Amino acid sequence: MVMVELHIALPDWAASMADRAPAVFATMEDKMRFVIELARNNVKHGLGGPFGAAVFTETGELLSVGVNQVMVAQCSILHAEIMALALAQKRLGSYDLSQDGRLRHDLYASTEPCAMCFGAIPWAGVTGLVCAARDEDARMIGFEEGAKLRDWVGALHARGIKVQRDVLREEAKAVLRDYAAAGGKIYNSKGTAS
Amino acid sequence: MVMVELHIALPDWAASMADRAPAVFATMEDKMRFVIELARNNVKHGLGGPFGAAVFTETGELLSVGVNQVMVAQCSILHAEIMALALAQKRLGSYDLSQDGRLRHDLYASTEPCAMCFGAIPWAGVTGLVCAARDEDARMIGFEEGAKLRDWVGALHARGIKVQRDVLREEAKAVLRDYAAAGGKIYNSKGTAS
Repeated sequence: MVMVELHIALPDWAASMADRAPAVFATMEDKMRFVIELARNNVKHGLGGPFGAAVFTETGELLSVGVNQVMVAQCSILHAEIMALALAQKRLGSYDLSQDGRLRHDLYASTEPCAMCFGAIPWAGVTGLVCAARDEDARMIGFEEGAKLRDWVGALHARGIKVQRDVLREEAKAVLRDYAAAGGKIYNSKGTAS
Repeated sequence: MVMVELHIALPDWAASMADRAPAVFATMEDKMRFVIELARNNVKHGLGGPFGAAVFTETGELLSVGVNQVMVAQCSILHAEIMALALAQKRLGSYDLSQDGRLRHDLYASTEPCAMCFGAIPWAGVTGLVCAARDEDARMIGFEEGAKLRDWVGALHARGIKVQRDVLREEAKAVLRDYAAAGGKIYNSKGTAS
């Protein structure tokens, strides 16, 4: 008998963090600090990978949050970015966050997107992507990012999605390093052996 | 208040199709015929995009099915391949369908994967991908596939994922053509305007 449904939920602590968030985030750094805190708490509270994400409106309101739930939910799709995008769409009631180009939303990610999340971003209708740690920071501790275009940033720009890198990169790298130092599991790292 | 959960379910008719499926599918073509029928029924039963997918075990048993639910569920992540992979993982209780390389599973897709699904495939632990319609067949009716590596097939092969193309391609193309002819919506087609 095949499975017919998936039930995916944010951890309670992440929902609480979102509830306690300011009504408006003033700066890019404020938003990224929040997202890095999601990543750090996701490690602290259990089996989560060291990754967080969130979608913000043009005026700085928090629309959705996501944390990596691959191991907790035993689902390889559940990267932080995917969670944040899907929950943002649920809140707006639309698979197109841009609403036919009328609205601007930014996806913030504590680490640059893997190949899957890179591919998911244009379909979601966000108009901006802001990242902290780089691909190579994730690879440094053993995670993979998959087979991305060399110029993945240019590919997003070409679609009208503005990419901003290295926002609080060192803070996000520290979360990755601490995860590795604490013996956090590096899942998804199969290389050619899969 | 942010959204905290997602509930994703296969349409009833797709669950019924899976229930009525043979215990074992003998040939690659038998499996693909089933997946193309999922795509066709997804259009027939409502707002679904013309795409189906399924995961099969090495011995030909159906492990999971997926259909495109982007418009129905208002969620851009819910491509047929993503549904099939996530539901297969739920059934096995593991984010790694290969179980550390011990098991072999094939993902069948009625059309070659978009950039997001291409990126999702290695994370899921499938060891094979079998496709019917090509990228260009989807583009022919206005769908986009996103920014994929030119040699996306080689990139999957390099990870030990065998790719087989053009299995019942004409049958799958017919579903795409019929969708377009009936005025089916081409969502996700923002080009550079997003």
